Amino acid sequence: MISPVYEDVLAAADRLKGVVIRTPLLRCPALSERFAAQIYLKAENLQHTGSFKFRGAYNALSQIPKSEMPKGVLAISSGNHGQGVAEAARLLGIQATVLMPDDAPKVKIARTQASGADVVFYNRLTDDRDLITSEHLSRSGAILIHPFNNVDVIAGQGTVGLEIVEALQTEGLVPDVLLSCTGGGGLTAGIALACSASFPDVQMFSVEPDGFDDYRQSLLAGAIVSNKLTTGSICDAILTPAPGDIGFSINRDRLRGGLSVSDGEALQAVRFIFEKHRMVAEPGGSVALAAILSGKLEAHIGSLSGKTIVVTVSGGNVDQTLLFEALEA
Amino acid sequence: MISPVYEDVLAAADRLKGVVIRTPLLRCPALSERFAAQIYLKAENLQHTGSFKFRGAYNALSQIPKSEMPKGVLAISSGNHGQGVAEAARLLGIQATVLMPDDAPKVKIARTQASGADVVFYNRLTDDRDLITSEHLSRSGAILIHPFNNVDVIAGQGTVGLEIVEALQTEGLVPDVLLSCTGGGGLTAGIALACSASFPDVQMFSVEPDGFDDYRQSLLAGAIVSNKLTTGSICDAILTPAPGDIGFSINRDRLRGGLSVSDGEALQAVRFIFEKHRMVAEPGGSVALAAILSGKLEAHIGSLSGKTIVVTVSGGNVDQTLLFEALEA
Repeated sequence: MISPVYEDVLAAADRLKGVVIRTPLLRCPALSERFAAQIYLKAENLQHTGSFKFRGAYNALSQIPKSEMPKGVLAISSGNHGQGVAEAARLLGIQATVLMPDDAPKVKIARTQASGADVVFYNRLTDDRDLITSEHLSRSGAILIHPFNNVDVIAGQGTVGLEIVEALQTEGLVPDVLLSCTGGGGLTAGIALACSASFPDVQMFSVEPDGFDDYRQSLLAGAIVSNKLTTGSICDAILTPAPGDIGFSINRDRLRGGLSVSDGEALQAVRFIFEKHRMVAEPGGSVALAAILSGKLEAHIGSLSGKTIVVTVSGGNVDQTLLFEALEA
Repeated sequence: MISPVYEDVLAAADRLKGVVIRTPLLRCPALSERFAAQIYLKAENLQHTGSFKFRGAYNALSQIPKSEMPKGVLAISSGNHGQGVAEAARLLGIQATVLMPDDAPKVKIARTQASGADVVFYNRLTDDRDLITSEHLSRSGAILIHPFNNVDVIAGQGTVGLEIVEALQTEGLVPDVLLSCTGGGGLTAGIALACSASFPDVQMFSVEPDGFDDYRQSLLAGAIVSNKLTTGSICDAILTPAPGDIGFSINRDRLRGGLSVSDGEALQAVRFIFEKHRMVAEPGGSVALAAILSGKLEAHIGSLSGKTIVVTVSGGNVDQTLLFEALEA
C-alpha cells in the first residue's frame, strides 16, 4: 500500500492554487466565551461545490494523463464527492459519470448534474452497486476515483490542513485540539498529515454519527472495524462502512481517539452555525462542532478552558427542507 | 469637522485584534467564470453580530473613558448598528440602549436584546425619533454612538479594508474595482481610507438600492444630497436619508461614482450567495454583488474581462421568512 506523505500535500496545494477557495478559519465568539477557550471553525462548507471533496477530486483528476482523459472518470457518491468530481472534471474537460443512491439529497443530485456529470442512480437495497460499477468500468474504460481510499484524494484534502496551519501561524496560535468530521477518513488523514508536521502535539479526534463510529472503533481496536449499520442517520455525507486502509495507516498513529454524536446533536450544530455564523452547513459537516456544543468533548478530555481548538465544518450541501427543520427544532 | 486618517484605522485594528472575526475574502468561481474576471467577496456577513457594524461600535465604545462608562450608550438603528453596539457594550460592561423602529426585522430585534441591550421602539410615521433621542440623552447622560457620522466608527469599519488589502497582497493581487454596499457611507469611507493607501488606482463605487441612491447623487453633485424616499425597500440596513459629512469628505475624492440596484436584484444576490456560497446574506448586504450579477457594473464600466474585483457582503441578518422567499423566487 502506498500512502501519501507531507510533500504530496504540498504538491497538491500547488495544483489547487487559484482553483479552490481558500476557506476561512473563523473564530467562534459564542463557544469561545462559553468554554473560556479559543474555538475556531475551518469553514469548508464555503468551498467550491460546498465541501472539501472538490480539493481531492481536482488533485486526482488534474494528474490524469492527457491520453487517458477521453475515457472519462467514475465516482460513487451520495453527493459531495460526486459534486467535487463532476466540477473538477468539467474544469479539466473530462467526462464524469457519478453513481448515486436514489435517496441522495436532491440538492446534491441537482448540483452534480449542473456540473455536467452523467448521474446514474441505484437503489441501496435492491441494486448491486459493485456490479453496476464494474460493468460501467469495463464498458467505458473510465478511471474510478475513490472518495477516500486514494493517495491523490487524501493529499488534496490535506490542503485543508495546510490552510489551518497557515491561518493559526498568522495569528501566532498553537492548537491543543483538532476535531475532524470523519467518514472514510480521507479528510481526517489529510489534515493529520498536514497538521502533525507543524503541530506534533495537537490532540486530534475523529467525530462520527452515533452508530456509524467505525473510525472510533478501529482506533480502539488498532485495526479496521466495520459499522454494523449502513443506513439510519441524516449525516449522509459520512456514512461509510469502514475506514479506508490508506487513511487509516496515517490516522492510526496520529489520532487520540474518536467521538460520536446523535442526529439531534448534529442538527443543533447546523442551527448554531446558521444562527451564529450565518452559514449553511449539512448535518454530516457539523458533527465536529456538535461534539463541542453537546459537551461531549469536554466530557471526554476535561475542561476546555484556555485551550485552542480547531473544528472542521466540512460540508454545506443540505436540502432546504431539512435545513428549515433544523432551524425550527 | 475632524476626519479619520489612515493611522486611525491601524489603531482600530489593534483595538479589535482578537475581538472581531477576521472575515474571509472568498473567490467566487461562478461569477469569475461568467465574466472572465477574478471576483472576490469580502464576507462581513460572517462577522460577529452578523455585520461589519460590530467593528466600528467596538472601536468607539472601547475608547470611552472609564469614568464615562456608567452613563451608558445610546444607538439608533434598524438593527445592525444596534446589534454591534449592544454586543460591544456587553463585552465592555457598558449599559446600552438601542432605539429601533417597530418595523425592524424580528431577527435584529431579538439579537440586539440577546446581547442585553434595552430596546426602545418608535413608530417611523407617528413618533418623533429626535425628540425621544434627546429626552433619553438628557435624562441618562448616555453617549450617543452615531452609526456612521463618527470618526471612531469609520476608523473601525476601515479595518474591513485593511483585511481586504492584506488578503489581496497575500495572493499577489491588485484590485481593479471595489464595490461597497453603502448606507450612510461609514463602511465605504473606512474601506476607501484603507484601500486607497495601498491601491491608489482602484476604481471604487458605492452601491445602493434604487430610489435610495443619495450617495450616487451626492457624488455627482459634489455635495450632500438627500433621498426623497424614506421607506419602500427591503434593504433596511442601508436606507439612510443622506451621506454623513465625515464619510463624504473621505469618499468624495476616492470614489468613481455610485450604482444602484432594485429590490429584486438584491434578492437574486441573496439567493446566489446562499446557493453558491452556502452563506446567509441580507438584501442590504447583497447590493454590491447584485450590481455585478445584474450586469449593471458591466453596463457602467464595460467588459469585466481580466479584472480583479472585490465586493463587500456587508451583513447577514435577514428574517427567515424573507430568506425563504428569496430562495423560492
